[in-house]
Amino acid sequence: MWLSIDKNSDFSIHNLPFGIFSTPKTPKRVGVALGPWIIDMTKLADLGAFGGVEFDKNVFQKEFLNDFMAAGKAVRVGVRQVLQQIFEDPCSPFKGFASDFLVPQKDAILHLPVKVGDYTDFYSSEQHAFNVGAMFRDPQNALLPNWKHLPVAYHGRASSIFVSGTHFHRPKGQTCPDETQPPIFGPTKRLDIELEMATIIGMGNEIGDCISVNEAEEHVFGFLLFNDWSARDIQKWEYVPLGPFLAKNFFSSVSPWVVTMEALAPFRVPTPAQIPAVLPYLKGQHLQNFDVTLEVYIQPAEDKEQSEFLLCRSNFKNMYWTVAQQIAHHTVNGCNLNVGDMLASGTISGKEPDSFGSLLELTWGGKNPIPLPNGLVRKFVEDYDTLIIRGFAQKGEIRVGFGEVKTTILPAK
Amino acid sequence: MWLSIDKNSDFSIHNLPFGIFSTPKTPKRVGVALGPWIIDMTKLADLGAFGGVEFDKNVFQKEFLNDFMAAGKAVRVGVRQVLQQIFEDPCSPFKGFASDFLVPQKDAILHLPVKVGDYTDFYSSEQHAFNVGAMFRDPQNALLPNWKHLPVAYHGRASSIFVSGTHFHRPKGQTCPDETQPPIFGPTKRLDIELEMATIIGMGNEIGDCISVNEAEEHVFGFLLFNDWSARDIQKWEYVPLGPFLAKNFFSSVSPWVVTMEALAPFRVPTPAQIPAVLPYLKGQHLQNFDVTLEVYIQPAEDKEQSEFLLCRSNFKNMYWTVAQQIAHHTVNGCNLNVGDMLASGTISGKEPDSFGSLLELTWGGKNPIPLPNGLVRKFVEDYDTLIIRGFAQKGEIRVGFGEVKTTILPAK
Repeated sequence: MWLSIDKNSDFSIHNLPFGIFSTPKTPKRVGVALGPWIIDMTKLADLGAFGGVEFDKNVFQKEFLNDFMAAGKAVRVGVRQVLQQIFEDPCSPFKGFASDFLVPQKDAILHLPVKVGDYTDFYSSEQHAFNVGAMFRDPQNALLPNWKHLPVAYHGRASSIFVSGTHFHRPKGQTCPDETQPPIFGPTKRLDIELEMATIIGMGNEIGDCISVNEAEEHVFGFLLFNDWSARDIQKWEYVPLGPFLAKNFFSSVSPWVVTMEALAPFRVPTPAQIPAVLPYLKGQHLQNFDVTLEVYIQPAEDKEQSEFLLCRSNFKNMYWTVAQQIAHHTVNGCNLNVGDMLASGTISGKEPDSFGSLLELTWGGKNPIPLPNGLVRKFVEDYDTLIIRGFAQKGEIRVGFGEVKTTILPAK
Repeated sequence: MWLSIDKNSDFSIHNLPFGIFSTPKTPKRVGVALGPWIIDMTKLADLGAFGGVEFDKNVFQKEFLNDFMAAGKAVRVGVRQVLQQIFEDPCSPFKGFASDFLVPQKDAILHLPVKVGDYTDFYSSEQHAFNVGAMFRDPQNALLPNWKHLPVAYHGRASSIFVSGTHFHRPKGQTCPDETQPPIFGPTKRLDIELEMATIIGMGNEIGDCISVNEAEEHVFGFLLFNDWSARDIQKWEYVPLGPFLAKNFFSSVSPWVVTMEALAPFRVPTPAQIPAVLPYLKGQHLQNFDVTLEVYIQPAEDKEQSEFLLCRSNFKNMYWTVAQQIAHHTVNGCNLNVGDMLASGTISGKEPDSFGSLLELTWGGKNPIPLPNGLVRKFVEDYDTLIIRGFAQKGEIRVGFGEVKTTILPAK
């Protein structure tokens, strides 16, 4: 490759994730991350790079990826191949114009990459469901009877999904710390993270139609890191019988670069054994999970040097229900998905305690505070803490990373 | 008024609801219902009728009301006043052009009036919550501890909200009729209606800000009739612990005409006494409920003459939690509402058994089938049944109606 990229970069030539960026000189538009650069797709299209791929090139001059996504999988794959050819060919005719279409990431602002129509949150990690069930209900019957028969999910709030770097104020709400007393009102005392991945839908279905489990991946454009911020004390009081509402809808944060299905293809791993057997409409193929290391870091408010400390390390492969199964289930009743819809995985916890994907689980409901260096501890998130999720897949020399989603918590208004 | 309108018309000069229509000659655009007519707002604006109201008249040439709603309350009120003046003035200069801007409703197609960003469903009728709690949990403790402290709600599916006249296929899904056996898959056997009203948000709030209970009505554009179709057998199996999902998201239907806050003003009635007292952020004003009669009719599949039979008659005033309280609660954590968001009321059931707003309640879980004429009975909705919700407010000569939402159920695909 004629562009020099650090071998540890998340944004290798094998990745080529899509996002939306702007600079002081250019309005929001589609870009592709490559090492420390952003490929300005509008500029590269203007140079004629994509003449061999049939689609309306105006889809690159948009504030969201949706129109490009709607152009379809063949266009996405074609554009990806053109990019790989350009950068791998030392004699590429576009090499001489590189300064025209490469923008340093440090000079750009990254924006929410997709316009989210509907957002769904699943609950697909067995260990997470077990942990929550054991804490709140009964360790002997931690999983509810439906859990191994269907990928449990609920609808969430699309309007309050923001990109990495957007900060938010600690939410206020009703809690009932003493159930013999009336509820009280105030800032949440149990602000938590949830380590999740978000699937971005690139092709929808008509109302009344369903998407079969083996067609489902054709409907996926790619994935983002997702932090499903949660207020545990608000959640505990409000969630019966209709599920989480204000405990979740105050803010969710996502990473800016959508890593495509094609980039993740080398990292497929077996779907876990599912016992009891699932109903036929959920019977998927063998390699429908993905080996993506996921990490959560904290920069504690008290640390003036903004040091980062690892809170947990999990993996996208710790999913009992695959993305394909989630999509098949979501549409089996005829529910229509649209381009840009976001399906979050639910908190991804592994078997080991240091792989649990929320503070609720890591501290076991606040009972076991997490020791940090310099005598600091955390039960839940404090004001001015910064939380970072990172993710990457690696196989030999091939690295495909997600970058990060980084959010600072401001005090309640 | 120089236009003759039946005194029983839902669309009196006091109403003037906004919607989206098209005809073979005109694409989708904003209209206002008046008697059997639709006022083509684009045409009337072209004639200069709204010169005294400052806004971009292009908002009428849109496929949804959102841009007009975003113009603000003053514009909505101003446009309404102009319309009332035009039709009440026997010498109106626009009278001679009536055939240019009046379209017979029978010649038009009505469309979904708003582009819904996020859709929230509340659970705000005490009798409904009591009935469901008594049936599924415990008649002695039918209301959960949080119910009288906060307006319980959950996020629903925006993509599957369709306008009256759109039909849908009976949804399929997992159910578990015998809990000692594995779940089974097939068409729902307990397809139900929910009689609801939907609030349409006309002014949003920024993320992190909240809307106070006494400002809340300023954020409302108006209301629709809402049928929250539900598959009770799917719901029962899937809904723990995260709430309803596939039991609801296959289809929801709304009426086409948005009745404004101004049109409903004469029908304000007292907010019900709320005991125990609510937290200060929920303490609203005295007259924040609305006296709107709501009716559900069925045209049973077997009846070849398509006769309609009344299933229940309820009233929008049967709400324990007001719309103002719903909005204050929804945003108290900083959750951002946007123009076009839809907040459904939850099933509106009154005290009397014939005012229950769902078949689940009317038949008490299917135990007491409803007798219809000609020996017909219904426990739940059957294929080819047509369900109709109507709503109207009346005070002396003043009638403000919602029209109807009418939907036929097709067999499972």
